[in-house]
Amino acid sequence: MAQKPSLPKGTRDFGPEQMFKRNYIIDTIKDVFRKYGFMPLETPAMENLSVLTGKYGDEGDQLLFRVLNSGDFLSKVNDDDYAEGYKSLSPKITEKGLKYDLTVPFARYVVMNQTEVTFPFKRYQIQPVWRADRPQKGRYREFYQCDADIVGTNSLVCEAELLAMVQEVYKKLTFDAYQIAISNRKVLEGIAEVCGAKEEFSRFCVILDKLDKIGKEKVFSELESIGVNEAGLKTLDSILSLTGHNISKLDVLAEIFGTSEIGQNGISEVKETLDNLSLLGFLTDKVSVDFTLARGLSYYTGMIYEVKPTTVKMGTITAGGRYDNLTGVFGLQGISGVGVSFGIDRIYDTLEELNLFPISEAKYSKVLLVPFDEEAQRHSLQLLCQLRNAGIASEVYPEPAKMKKQLGYADKKGIPFVLLIGSEEIKQQRYTLKYMETGNQDMFTIEDVITNLQEEL
Amino acid sequence: MAQKPSLPKGTRDFGPEQMFKRNYIIDTIKDVFRKYGFMPLETPAMENLSVLTGKYGDEGDQLLFRVLNSGDFLSKVNDDDYAEGYKSLSPKITEKGLKYDLTVPFARYVVMNQTEVTFPFKRYQIQPVWRADRPQKGRYREFYQCDADIVGTNSLVCEAELLAMVQEVYKKLTFDAYQIAISNRKVLEGIAEVCGAKEEFSRFCVILDKLDKIGKEKVFSELESIGVNEAGLKTLDSILSLTGHNISKLDVLAEIFGTSEIGQNGISEVKETLDNLSLLGFLTDKVSVDFTLARGLSYYTGMIYEVKPTTVKMGTITAGGRYDNLTGVFGLQGISGVGVSFGIDRIYDTLEELNLFPISEAKYSKVLLVPFDEEAQRHSLQLLCQLRNAGIASEVYPEPAKMKKQLGYADKKGIPFVLLIGSEEIKQQRYTLKYMETGNQDMFTIEDVITNLQEEL
Repeated sequence: MAQKPSLPKGTRDFGPEQMFKRNYIIDTIKDVFRKYGFMPLETPAMENLSVLTGKYGDEGDQLLFRVLNSGDFLSKVNDDDYAEGYKSLSPKITEKGLKYDLTVPFARYVVMNQTEVTFPFKRYQIQPVWRADRPQKGRYREFYQCDADIVGTNSLVCEAELLAMVQEVYKKLTFDAYQIAISNRKVLEGIAEVCGAKEEFSRFCVILDKLDKIGKEKVFSELESIGVNEAGLKTLDSILSLTGHNISKLDVLAEIFGTSEIGQNGISEVKETLDNLSLLGFLTDKVSVDFTLARGLSYYTGMIYEVKPTTVKMGTITAGGRYDNLTGVFGLQGISGVGVSFGIDRIYDTLEELNLFPISEAKYSKVLLVPFDEEAQRHSLQLLCQLRNAGIASEVYPEPAKMKKQLGYADKKGIPFVLLIGSEEIKQQRYTLKYMETGNQDMFTIEDVITNLQEEL
Repeated sequence: MAQKPSLPKGTRDFGPEQMFKRNYIIDTIKDVFRKYGFMPLETPAMENLSVLTGKYGDEGDQLLFRVLNSGDFLSKVNDDDYAEGYKSLSPKITEKGLKYDLTVPFARYVVMNQTEVTFPFKRYQIQPVWRADRPQKGRYREFYQCDADIVGTNSLVCEAELLAMVQEVYKKLTFDAYQIAISNRKVLEGIAEVCGAKEEFSRFCVILDKLDKIGKEKVFSELESIGVNEAGLKTLDSILSLTGHNISKLDVLAEIFGTSEIGQNGISEVKETLDNLSLLGFLTDKVSVDFTLARGLSYYTGMIYEVKPTTVKMGTITAGGRYDNLTGVFGLQGISGVGVSFGIDRIYDTLEELNLFPISEAKYSKVLLVPFDEEAQRHSLQLLCQLRNAGIASEVYPEPAKMKKQLGYADKKGIPFVLLIGSEEIKQQRYTLKYMETGNQDMFTIEDVITNLQEEL
């Protein structure tokens, strides 16, 4: 009769302990977003499939969760649709899907509200998204994205602002073991040009991006196979061998670029971003110019950046870049944007591995009132009123259960103090305050209990 | 080519202004929940349909949003399934649905985590739910629920705690024009018993519940039609005519109940709840015992309460009650719970109508830096650094656009101050701070700007 319930694969519950840690990360990021002038946006979980499909490539379309039409979803289906198979039937019986990322819904919002939105529009959005991916360690079918974007300006001040935010977020999270790699699509185009691979730009980037995984030798042989000649490989080799500070690397690259206009353009953008970042008071030694960084080039058009931990084996924890024509697909042309996305799950795992979550004495309640009997129970409600009026998060065990049971509750829930209340305590109007960690205890009036707990806050 | 995008009906975007107000409500409620010892829980948007179906009646099952299985969803469908129509096909091609409320997923969580959960378990949950209802004013297909429940104890202290929270929430929201109606299923059973309608309890309640809408005369004639005789109607009339304070009404009702055990039991529970509430320091004159309150009796088994505004035409804004056997359907027996649910959308509309949202000068950024030219733009980044280090939410217009455009941006975004930066200002190291509302302005060093803005915070 009663079924044993389960969760859909790739989805998760977040209980109190995880919520405490997740909120710590999300609230920290949110505070920084706000301090930098970003405003919140929320969009629905469901979008019309016409908004979603065709925006993430064929693979993305396959990974959309589609919502069955309500009521008689077969009413407009004919037998041919059914006979042709699921690909033909699917669009006839579904018109909504769960959102796949926050960027496309954001673009839709901007287009639908273009007359009311104040440009440049700085918005942040922290919401779950859904992908029908095969679940595996660290990959979920429902997960939060946490994005900040500035749209409606080409200014490179924005890139620096986002990089400053990244550093401020990790500083607030007391996490320092990371490096920010930056590059620029135009720099990559310049490199392809001087290597003689201008016409094969995307394949050139896909191969270059594999450097970390397959090594230089294999990358070079793959590049040869797409027609990069020996001179080209030699040029690339000299670029990849550049060492030293960001600026000196960029200066040498500028010489190599020579008359490549797009390349020089890219170098200026990188330099201006770094310059702006240091004007904003941030050290640029957290930032490395990385000429092999070739991520997201199907949509990024200018600066690109990604953040990785240096002492923990973990993928990219934050990434972003500039994209032109965010809203073009919905008919609004010429809106350039730049964004950054924080990977909450990976940041969580990183902080967990490095033991960087704050050790908070009282995650939720500060004190549990422990009544010994019915009379004490009634009395404890009056004390509870005084504690809460003083702003102290507190609760009473709702039944006069055995003391051991009540203390066990405080212990399991991580409540640092208990206040013991029996008939003797009520007569004396002094109650035993016990510090759970050490077992130390003493008797106080309720006023002194409040003072003690407030000092502890 | 480019489609004009739209939102699925019954769903909404929340832009910055709405988010500001929604967060004000949600953060206020969340703070109170935490102060009372409730801990957060989040469950996924999608649940297995085996968890959801059969929990909300036939109507509820119809209103579930079902998610199409991924990949070839027809692979296990045979032609008969298709020929039999959508009702037969649906369970073959969907196995997940969007959650319909927060209570069933909560029950699932408790059952799946019963060995780790600390009972009594006090949890709050603030998340969207989905219902394929016909959208209309105030009714959405995606909307937030905001619930707090205590499960695993029968103690009536919990009921009082929840009623205290309701009052604390509305006090914090500076909203006082409401009344809390309370009753108890057992009191209603007693009334049905003394009116001779014990065997027709549910129909009796359904009719009684219509009193507000159709009036006493019609209610009485409907009751006659289910077999309530003249003596029964006379008794009911005397109960409905009871006036005066809660306790005196309850005392008279106790006399009327005589030997009705269940009725007397219900009266004790109501009295104990009121007594606990006043021990917790809350006035009980916000609370009216209402013998016609007969909501949710298909699941409530003890105390019932609902909150309505008194000066605004609006339905119930908060409601709850005690339910036994929350988790029985998933095989875990004997877990009693009591909960309260805040209706965010209706609270929003109520506060809006009564103009009770706080007038905050700076919803997001406190000051906009307005550079006149490229040099000023660079300089402004350094000032921005100082402002933010002092904890002041601030931003720079990312391009040295015309002053009018920049001031328009500050105005539309509701930024209360602007700091004007031109070559003269840079030379003097004094900048013009302008208060947007009055147009008053004066020149200050950046240190004095910071002091001024911090005092304004």
